[in-house]
Amino acid sequence: MNPFSLMIHGGAGTSREPDRYDASLRRVVEAGAKLLNDGMSALDVVTRCVVMLEDDPLYDAGCGSALNVDGEVRLDASIMDGRNLEAGAVACVAGVKNPVILARTVMERSEHVFLIGAGAEQFGRENDIVFVDSRYFYSEERSNELKMVKERHEGLREGVHNQSGKLGTVGAVARDKYGNLAAATSTGGLTNQSMGRVGDSPIIGAGTYADNFTCAVSCTGIGEHILRTSLARSASLFVEIKGLGAADAAEAAKQLLINRINGLGGLIIVDRNGECAYAHSTPGMRSAWAIGDKIFVKIT
Amino acid sequence: MNPFSLMIHGGAGTSREPDRYDASLRRVVEAGAKLLNDGMSALDVVTRCVVMLEDDPLYDAGCGSALNVDGEVRLDASIMDGRNLEAGAVACVAGVKNPVILARTVMERSEHVFLIGAGAEQFGRENDIVFVDSRYFYSEERSNELKMVKERHEGLREGVHNQSGKLGTVGAVARDKYGNLAAATSTGGLTNQSMGRVGDSPIIGAGTYADNFTCAVSCTGIGEHILRTSLARSASLFVEIKGLGAADAAEAAKQLLINRINGLGGLIIVDRNGECAYAHSTPGMRSAWAIGDKIFVKIT
Repeated sequence: MNPFSLMIHGGAGTSREPDRYDASLRRVVEAGAKLLNDGMSALDVVTRCVVMLEDDPLYDAGCGSALNVDGEVRLDASIMDGRNLEAGAVACVAGVKNPVILARTVMERSEHVFLIGAGAEQFGRENDIVFVDSRYFYSEERSNELKMVKERHEGLREGVHNQSGKLGTVGAVARDKYGNLAAATSTGGLTNQSMGRVGDSPIIGAGTYADNFTCAVSCTGIGEHILRTSLARSASLFVEIKGLGAADAAEAAKQLLINRINGLGGLIIVDRNGECAYAHSTPGMRSAWAIGDKIFVKIT
Repeated sequence: MNPFSLMIHGGAGTSREPDRYDASLRRVVEAGAKLLNDGMSALDVVTRCVVMLEDDPLYDAGCGSALNVDGEVRLDASIMDGRNLEAGAVACVAGVKNPVILARTVMERSEHVFLIGAGAEQFGRENDIVFVDSRYFYSEERSNELKMVKERHEGLREGVHNQSGKLGTVGAVARDKYGNLAAATSTGGLTNQSMGRVGDSPIIGAGTYADNFTCAVSCTGIGEHILRTSLARSASLFVEIKGLGAADAAEAAKQLLINRINGLGGLIIVDRNGECAYAHSTPGMRSAWAIGDKIFVKIT
């Protein structure tokens, strides 16, 4: 049994600057592993890791989020506690600095699992969530991406293969020293996406799932494909019913995506024994993991 | 093998007027069974049945929807085609006469699976969806329910046991003459619910799932509990991996709800062989089904 395990991802896009992703993911996973070693809970560590990723403009989440068809940022996030299957999620919120913290607050301070739009923002304001103005999310890079995607009129699949959609969703899964699992996912969505479009990231069972009896999962890729296969919950049930470990469950989830819908996506898993694995049908995937004091980074 | 199968539900609330529900469910399931007998597809029949249920003020869906905390109606629906795992869903939309038709239009005419709020409404207007004004949804009964729930300050669980939350979500699942499966679910949410709260009904994998290789599922109950267990997708994987039929899969899904989170919910299933089943941990459940020319109605 591993003392503790942590795995993070920076999306399923292909990386033109792999060294930048390597350095960023390494920094986050090292920081998270230190916290787990110090005895912090899996739930706190996945929250902290996703906050660090949301605060890095490299990713399509938090400050670096993609711009939608109106040139605006709308944010989605979810979190799940493997101890009790408690969960929180938000979708289509504006101006929230760290959507994963809002999702966690929904889990802890509301009776609900899923709040969206203005209602979620109002709940955030009533619960001391940090809001920022639209300049916080502005960058020339994202603005140029939006222009480029609008000119190309790409569909969902073309965006992945042309690398114009960055698919830079972030996520973290962990098993702490006490054997508890947790998962969290956060995204800014697709560049040029329609108002109101929601992918898998805020959907418990699609983008995120965690259950102490099985595994913790965070997904990335074309959200529509992950939704149609309930990919995170499927991986969890592959562990529960088929008795698979993380590596085989990740592979089985990938095969489900490919064989049933020719889907494009990826996932990271930490299982109840602390085994870490990833799999993806997308051209690229960026992940990093720590098992005890050993750190691994993989950018494809 | 049954020639065709259809199952519908009118929610997991307890029924003070069981005869009204019996008559309504019988009318809808008879109409749907006739269409299946005439050779209509499962996808078309679940759409038609949910439209009929949305158009009956008895249920918490469409015209009879519950009022939220602001005294307004916000609607959620989803649909899934078991032939190809295509799906469509909408949440938190205002003024849509038949949300299940909007969900189906998202599936058929957009690249996306899930659209919410104003973005979903805009998509509906661009695609000739019928909108109605707020008087369409007004009734003295719903208005009185809102007053009563506000006075009681009930939590989610108390609402179920006190029968003040009607839990009148509707759904339909079918297997047509050609062996194809489909599922659809529609709701007005909880009386007095917060702005932006979304339950399981519009979530593919939670409230709705359909896969020709396994079964078609529609859920009802406390949406938060169904979301945390990805109940519809779980039932589908119980069929796929454990090889269960509809009755055993429905019972296993109910046990999952009870054993893991003391959850309150119910579900209906038609499996790939046309077997129909329901199970519920809520005090009540209203369902009806047709296997060939035999009609059954069960109000508990």
